Amino acid sequence: MDRGLIALAAGLAITFAAGLAGLGIGLSSGKAFDSMARQPEMANKIQSLLFIAIIFIEATAIYALVVSLILLFVFK
Amino acid sequence: MDRGLIALAAGLAITFAAGLAGLGIGLSSGKAFDSMARQPEMANKIQSLLFIAIIFIEATAIYALVVSLILLFVFK
Amino acid sequence: MDRGLIALAAGLAITFAAGLAGLGIGLSSGKAFDSMARQPEMANKIQSLLFIAIIFIEATAIYALVVSLILLFVFK
Amino acid sequence: MDRGLIALAAGLAITFAAGLAGLGIGLSSGKAFDSMARQPEMANKIQSLLFIAIIFIEATAIYALVVSLILLFVFK
Amino acid sequence: MDRGLIALAAGLAITFAAGLAGLGIGLSSGKAFDSMARQPEMANKIQSLLFIAIIFIEATAIYALVVSLILLFVFK
Amino acid sequence: MDRGLIALAAGLAITFAAGLAGLGIGLSSGKAFDSMARQPEMANKIQSLLFIAIIFIEATAIYALVVSLILLFVFK
Amino acid sequence: MDRGLIALAAGLAITFAAGLAGLGIGLSSGKAFDSMARQPEMANKIQSLLFIAIIFIEATAIYALVVSLILLFVFK
Amino acid sequence: MDRGLIALAAGLAITFAAGLAGLGIGLSSGKAFDSMARQPEMANKIQSLLFIAIIFIEATAIYALVVSLILLFVFK
Amino acid sequence: MDRGLIALAAGLAITFAAGLAGLGIGLSSGKAFDSMARQPEMANKIQSLLFIAIIFIEATAIYALVVSLILLFVFK
Amino acid sequence: MDRGLIALAAGLAITFAAGLAGLGIGLSSGKAFDSMARQPEMANKIQSLLFIAIIFIEATAIYALVVSLILLFVFK
Amino acid sequence: MDRGLIALAAGLAITFAAGLAGLGIGLSSGKAFDSMARQPEMANKIQSLLFIAIIFIEATAIYALVVSLILLFVFK
Amino acid sequence: MDRGLIALAAGLAITFAAGLAGLGIGLSSGKAFDSMARQPEMANKIQSLLFIAIIFIEATAIYALVVSLILLFVFK
Amino acid sequence: MDRGLIALAAGLAITFAAGLAGLGIGLSSGKAFDSMARQPEMANKIQSLLFIAIIFIEATAIYALVVSLILLFVFK
Amino acid sequence: MDRGLIALAAGLAITFAAGLAGLGIGLSSGKAFDSMARQPEMANKIQSLLFIAIIFIEATAIYALVVSLILLFVFK
Repeated sequence: MDRGLIALAAGLAITFAAGLAGLGIGLSSGKAFDSMARQPEMANKIQSLLFIAIIFIEATAIYALVVSLILLFVFK
Repeated sequence: MDRGLIALAAGLAITFAAGLAGLGIGLSSGKAFDSMARQPEMANKIQSLLFIAIIFIEATAIYALVVSLILLFVFK
Repeated sequence: MDRGLIALAAGLAITFAAGLAGLGIGLSSGKAFDSMARQPEMANKIQSLLFIAIIFIEATAIYALVVSLILLFVFK
Repeated sequence: MDRGLIALAAGLAITFAAGLAGLGIGLSSGKAFDSMARQPEMANKIQSLLFIAIIFIEATAIYALVVSLILLFVFK
Repeated sequence: MDRGLIALAAGLAITFAAGLAGLGIGLSSGKAFDSMARQPEMANKIQSLLFIAIIFIEATAIYALVVSLILLFVFK
Repeated sequence: MDRGLIALAAGLAITFAAGLAGLGIGLSSGKAFDSMARQPEMANKIQSLLFIAIIFIEATAIYALVVSLILLFVFK
Repeated sequence: MDRGLIALAAGLAITFAAGLAGLGIGLSSGKAFDSMARQPEMANKIQSLLFIAIIFIEATAIYALVVSLILLFVFK
Repeated sequence: MDRGLIALAAGLAITFAAGLAGLGIGLSSGKAFDSMARQPEMANKIQSLLFIAIIFIEATAIYALVVSLILLFVFK
Repeated sequence: MDRGLIALAAGLAITFAAGLAGLGIGLSSGKAFDSMARQPEMANKIQSLLFIAIIFIEATAIYALVVSLILLFVFK
Repeated sequence: MDRGLIALAAGLAITFAAGLAGLGIGLSSGKAFDSMARQPEMANKIQSLLFIAIIFIEATAIYALVVSLILLFVFK
Repeated sequence: MDRGLIALAAGLAITFAAGLAGLGIGLSSGKAFDSMARQPEMANKIQSLLFIAIIFIEATAIYALVVSLILLFVFK
Repeated sequence: MDRGLIALAAGLAITFAAGLAGLGIGLSSGKAFDSMARQPEMANKIQSLLFIAIIFIEATAIYALVVSLILLFVFK
Repeated sequence: MDRGLIALAAGLAITFAAGLAGLGIGLSSGKAFDSMARQPEMANKIQSLLFIAIIFIEATAIYALVVSLILLFVFK
Repeated sequence: MDRGLIALAAGLAITFAAGLAGLGIGLSSGKAFDSMARQPEMANKIQSLLFIAIIFIEATAIYALVVSLILLFVFK
């Protein structure tokens, strides 16, 4: 039954982390579009910061992906 | 029972990740339309950023898809 | 009992992914109508972007559908 | 007990997918009425886009219906 | 115990689908009244679209009803 | 134990469907009062549409009631 | 154990249906007071519609009460 | 164990019904105070309607109380 | 184990009923302060109605307390 | 195992009742500060009503505390 | 197993009570800062009331702490 | 198994208490910044009150920490 | 099985505490940016307070980390 | 079964911590873009504070990652 629980752990690890990270990118980029529309001359600064924010959010999803892959290939 | 739990893990992994990512794309694109309507001359910039945001959100869903497929084809 | 759990996994995989994707399309298209009403001359651009957004959201639902069908026809 | 779990899977698959899709159509159409009232001359465009959005949302519910029917008639 | 689980599946299938669909009709019709009050001359168009939206939402509830009745009369 | 699960299914089927439908009628009628207050001359049209919306929402609750009664009197 | 589950079903059936219906009446009547304050001359029409809305919401709670009483006195 | 489940059913029946009904009265009366402050000459009408709304909400809590007491004194 | 479940039922019965009732009083009184500040000459009327609302909300918590005490002293 | 379940019941009884009551006091007092700031000459009336509201909210938490202490010292 | 359940009860009792009380203090003090900024001459009154509100909210957390400590030192 | 449940209790006790307290500090300080920006001459008063609020919120987290440490070092 | 439950406790302890603390920092810093934009000359004061708020929020996450590490290295 | 529970703990530890941290970065950066658009000359200050906020949020996710990795490599 251990093998099944490890699989379940891998699935659980990725599902909320990836989903909420996706939601977070959606919120962040949505606000960025909003701000660009209101202040077009800030667009370049906001764009580069948006990339940084996306990368950090993506990073949290990748932490979970790493745990998930360790569970599947190393821990099994 | 392991096989059943692995299947459950694959289903769990994809369901919230894909669903919340879909919700995130919905929020992000919705805000993008809003911003385009308010500042039409920013439409091209916002459009290309929207594609980048969608791709990163889609990526979180694909992380979960990868875990899900590994569970089904490699880990089984 | 494995067969039952695989079935449960297929059901779980599709239910939240499809439902939240549907909600996401609803939010995205709702905002699109809003923006068209405020800026009619942007309607064509928004319409084509709406199609792209819907397709990407639909894609997340299809990821889950694929996992679901693999569970039912390949993994069983 | 497998048969019972397959039934449970079919019920689970349809319930949230159909319900959230219904909620999504409600949100989308509600926003569409709003936009028509504000910009009556856009009504025809919004109406045809609303139909497309409803069809795509309906599609996510149908994905779940398909999984549900496969579970009941093919997988059983 | 299978029979009990099939019954549970039928109950689960209908409860959230019907409830959330009811909520969706409530949201959609509420917005429709709002729009009619703001733009009375659009009332006829909105009314006919409201009927279409309600029918599609009702359809998602009926999908679940169909699964529920199949579970009770065909699958049992 | 089957009998107990069938009872549980009947209880589950009605509780969220009826409750959320009640919430939906509350939201829909609340918005209708709002619209009547803002545009009194639309009151008759909104009133007749409100009745139609209430009937359709009530219908979703009745779908669940039907499933519930079938579970109690036919399926038992 | 059946008897206990039937009791649990009766309790489950009434609790969310009654509670959410109560919440729905609260929302509906709250909006009605709001509308009366804004448009006093509509007060009589809104009042009679409020009664109709309350009755329909109360009806959903009574559906659940009926299922609950059938579970306790007929099904037991 | 039946006796324990019946007790649990009685507790479950009253807890959410009473709590959500209390929340509903809070929302309804809160809106009533709001409306009175905005339109003092409507205060008497709103007050009498508030009493009716409270009674109907209280009624849903009492439905659950009745089910709860039947469970404790008749069904036991 | 019955004794333990009865205790659990008593705890469950009071916890959400009392908590949500407390939240309801908080919402209701909060709105009352708001209304008094906007329309000081209505303060006496609102104050007496606030007492009535609080009593009715308190009543729902007391229903649950009664069920809880019956469970502990009569049903045990 | 009864003793453990009674302990669990005592813990469950107090946790949500106390927590939600605390949240309710927070909401109520927060609105009271708001109203005082907008209408300083009402401050004394609002202050005395705030004390009454807090006492009634505190009362719901104390109901749960009473049930909790009965469970620990009388029922055990 | 009793000892473990008592421990679990103590943990459960404190976690939501303390957490929600903390959230409540956050909401209450947040509103207090808001009101002070809008009406600086009310700052002293609001400050003393804020202390009273915080003490009452803290009290609900302490009720749970008391139950928790009784569970750990008296009931064990 | 007792030892495991005690550990689980310690983990449960701290997780929501600490998390919600952190959220509460976030809300409280956020509002404080807001108020300072609107009324800079109140900044010192708000700052000292913010520290008091943070300390009281931190206190609720520490209650849970205390219960958690008693569970791990005294109760074990 | 104790060892597994201790591990689960460590995981549970950190997950919500860290996550909600992260959310709290996000809310607090978001409001701080907002306030700085509205009142630039307050930026230095807000910045130093933001650091204090972040440290206190971080502290709640560290409480949970401490409990988690005690569970893994001392309690095991 | 211990090994499986440790895996589950590692998955649980990372999933909500990473996901909510990602959501927090999304909220914080979204507000930052907003503030930059409103007050462009504050952009540099806000940008450097945003980096600090992101690092502290990221830190909470890393706490969970550390616990997760300890669970997988040290505790196993």
